[in-house]
Amino acid sequence: MTIGIVGAGQLGRMLALAGYPLGLDFLFLDRSAAAPAAALAPILIGDLADPAQLRKLARRSQVISFDWENASVEGLRAATRGLPTRIAPPLRALATGQDRVAEKRLFERLGVPTTRFAAVNSRAELERAAARIGLPGVLKTRRLGYDGKGQRVVRDRAALAAAWRALGSVALIYEEFVPFEAEVSALGARARDGSEALYPLTRNWHADGILRLSVAPWEDRALERQARAHLRAVLREFRYVGVLAIEFFVRDGRLIANELAPRVHNSGHWTIEGASTSQFENHLRAIAGLPLGSTALLGHSAMVNLIGRMPARAVVLGEQGVHLHDYGKQARAGRKLGHCTLVARSAAERNRRLLRVLGRLEVALASAP
Amino acid sequence: MTIGIVGAGQLGRMLALAGYPLGLDFLFLDRSAAAPAAALAPILIGDLADPAQLRKLARRSQVISFDWENASVEGLRAATRGLPTRIAPPLRALATGQDRVAEKRLFERLGVPTTRFAAVNSRAELERAAARIGLPGVLKTRRLGYDGKGQRVVRDRAALAAAWRALGSVALIYEEFVPFEAEVSALGARARDGSEALYPLTRNWHADGILRLSVAPWEDRALERQARAHLRAVLREFRYVGVLAIEFFVRDGRLIANELAPRVHNSGHWTIEGASTSQFENHLRAIAGLPLGSTALLGHSAMVNLIGRMPARAVVLGEQGVHLHDYGKQARAGRKLGHCTLVARSAAERNRRLLRVLGRLEVALASAP
Repeated sequence: MTIGIVGAGQLGRMLALAGYPLGLDFLFLDRSAAAPAAALAPILIGDLADPAQLRKLARRSQVISFDWENASVEGLRAATRGLPTRIAPPLRALATGQDRVAEKRLFERLGVPTTRFAAVNSRAELERAAARIGLPGVLKTRRLGYDGKGQRVVRDRAALAAAWRALGSVALIYEEFVPFEAEVSALGARARDGSEALYPLTRNWHADGILRLSVAPWEDRALERQARAHLRAVLREFRYVGVLAIEFFVRDGRLIANELAPRVHNSGHWTIEGASTSQFENHLRAIAGLPLGSTALLGHSAMVNLIGRMPARAVVLGEQGVHLHDYGKQARAGRKLGHCTLVARSAAERNRRLLRVLGRLEVALASAP
Repeated sequence: MTIGIVGAGQLGRMLALAGYPLGLDFLFLDRSAAAPAAALAPILIGDLADPAQLRKLARRSQVISFDWENASVEGLRAATRGLPTRIAPPLRALATGQDRVAEKRLFERLGVPTTRFAAVNSRAELERAAARIGLPGVLKTRRLGYDGKGQRVVRDRAALAAAWRALGSVALIYEEFVPFEAEVSALGARARDGSEALYPLTRNWHADGILRLSVAPWEDRALERQARAHLRAVLREFRYVGVLAIEFFVRDGRLIANELAPRVHNSGHWTIEGASTSQFENHLRAIAGLPLGSTALLGHSAMVNLIGRMPARAVVLGEQGVHLHDYGKQARAGRKLGHCTLVARSAAERNRRLLRVLGRLEVALASAP
């Protein structure tokens, strides 16, 4: 069975690494033959929305998935028309994840607490939204934002004008600013037959809008119960197939949904070593129509993103029990180049080893556990 | 760094899967573009001893290794002449592993107990060997034997004549027949700086000359101590770099070395899920000049080879906690097509789950734990 994947980034690369042992084959579509997944699978070169290349991908694959949440919904629908090729996760989830307003409306409809928000299409709407929701707030593009790009925190009315000038050329959303205590994510897979395999709650730390560090399990029973219920609600709403992630803020012991990602997620990379079945394998099992694998934990995990420049390989591998994942990318400031993971017998041991690793790798964090 | 690998079989495939996360690239040489590793790395097509292709492999790689123990020693030496390309494991170990007589002599020289043997180049030498070593015995080709091929158990003088007719066209070895109680293997890596990372003792079950099942750790302290000492002696003798396996018979609580394999080994496949660092990753770390990884156990593992035909994927994956490794090969009687692994918290739980898996997969075994 060939899995076609739109986008050949690190997520696609890790999907292929997890899928070959299952006997799956892969075909990627990406703009660049130097993309991370291109080293280890055949690739079609073209724009990710190129109709001819998408059609070729659909003809040569039994299932199409995507490693990029902005894959073209219309392009995928057209490419598979008249073909038996399946698309997973479902296009409705992909479309919802691409529009922050649709995402918030979904959360509201399903009773998943989220930030107060307003769609903003004009300067006047922005003024009204700020008046109703209050300041400070966050102005974001509805589409194509990632890793903190396309958003501005607005602290006062003067900043409102500046934010409008910076972002106002496209459809926007104005959101309540949430002074959260923590960020967590819920991650799980749903199979075609409706069975589910959920991972434990993961706690995340960002800096400059980019995920730096995740630890799992984040042992807060009450939060985990809430997160699982919310994740299940979204999985069922979409009759979802594949892995889905939802990011939450935590405030006053309550979850506030921030956004969803209809794909494997950076905050789930620890599952490669830390769970019996990784998010990558479970995504593939789901979309290939196979039974989901156990999400049993193998210990207490920490995952550190390697951003901007790679530390010397021998430094990372010199730390006993640390696993390296090099995405094979050219270094560039702010770019995710790889990650490393450690798994320990206890949370205390994990934190102790993690702090040593962070020190050795000189990873900059806004805060640490 | 590009690792060139002679042979693109399942061992090469699993090496590439372990090596991409380390940021390594791969280039294979194999006769067939349908070889298991060819799906996930570039490949040169040609005979494994083809001088021009070996030279191309050497020019394009920083290190050359092999997934086949009969890789051409002379061919590799010639291919790397005048180039900075390293070869690992060392050619001396490769050469020794290719000749059963050299192997036995090595064991004798290092004080590693082995079977009594005699080199046999004529019918008269065979008669003398049988008279000296006794009957029953085993007549084997000195070279190119694997998975039970190229050998005959000789129970009486009449069988001696038949065995000679079957095998006598090439150089042979006559060995004492060892009615062993168990087969075990020792597996470990040695790095360029002389550091070592040894795995615990693995117990193996063969049928029809092919490995069917391995379980690890095989908790026999006395045997493990002996096995480690023997493994270390061989690693040091060769100033070895990479993973080395030695297979032993167990008789009356003592080890008898049967053969060595200067490469990753089928009896070490359980390390992918069962150890902190797999044999594949440690082989690559060693040959790439990186620090070795921890061989700490993640539980009690069992590995079952899938031979001749693949069970339905959903049947294997439907067993919770069972990991599938499909080599992407065409099915053929007696061919190793894949393996599956399970890791449990105790030996008792492992054995219980293993017996269920063996039943579901209908794996034929000569004996079971």
